Amino acid sequence: MEAALVNPFVEGTLYILDTTASVKAKPGKPFLKKRADAQGDICGILEITGDISGSARVSFSEKSILGIVSSMFGEEMTRIDDEIKDAVGEIGNMISGHVNTKMTELGKNVRVKLSGVAIGSQELPAFDPMAQVLVLPFLTTKGNLVVEVCFS
Amino acid sequence: MEAALVNPFVEGTLYILDTTASVKAKPGKPFLKKRADAQGDICGILEITGDISGSARVSFSEKSILGIVSSMFGEEMTRIDDEIKDAVGEIGNMISGHVNTKMTELGKNVRVKLSGVAIGSQELPAFDPMAQVLVLPFLTTKGNLVVEVCFS
Repeated sequence: MEAALVNPFVEGTLYILDTTASVKAKPGKPFLKKRADAQGDICGILEITGDISGSARVSFSEKSILGIVSSMFGEEMTRIDDEIKDAVGEIGNMISGHVNTKMTELGKNVRVKLSGVAIGSQELPAFDPMAQVLVLPFLTTKGNLVVEVCFS
Repeated sequence: MEAALVNPFVEGTLYILDTTASVKAKPGKPFLKKRADAQGDICGILEITGDISGSARVSFSEKSILGIVSSMFGEEMTRIDDEIKDAVGEIGNMISGHVNTKMTELGKNVRVKLSGVAIGSQELPAFDPMAQVLVLPFLTTKGNLVVEVCFS
């Protein structure tokens, strides 16, 4: 998987968490997985189109998303509700925005767009079972999150 | 109206537009208005509670919000739809977050929270007709917006 196409997801995630929620994140070691099992309790689903197509997910544990949104809104959030769901959607939109800007700078015809937010694994559309999924883990002061990228 | 309570709204607006949408905004000259008439085509409504109560609005012209969200998502937005409405809500939430953090730093017991998004003037709850409204205009490269703050 081409690093140039994956780095924008890492950079976008770090930037958005830092600027919108003052949450510092540290990227962990990326790894490939074959099984399309779900990660996390709530997840923004991104659709990738253009010269390369695929999908990505930004998945949060309940602890991490409550901590991140509490920091973002300056208000203590205690459960996954519609406000949290909207915030996950907007984090997904803003990460997409960063990826799109970066792809344009790199001269790549690749567009990323939020396609939905899933709570729990039941609502998650599966990744292409024939494709490899790159898992990008992040450690933050609020808990962990993972970004998964899958190019078909 | 105490400047210390208004400046966080100005700073939060500048910061959020810059970091989430790469939109530079320039604050114009604030002015007081008596009439509670609506500004803009879409508006995030913020509720202010604590030692001081009141409300605030972050109002965008159609042109400015389409330009700001296009820049935020890296994708051209052409009309005010649910995605734009959600983005206005999240901009309101993130500005609230900044204001809350600042108020805590200032030792003020004042909390700000998004209470809704209104499209057009019909949906807008009126400001307290007895209170003065401080209008904070902003000029941006995408168009204009105003933040209005009203302490009852």
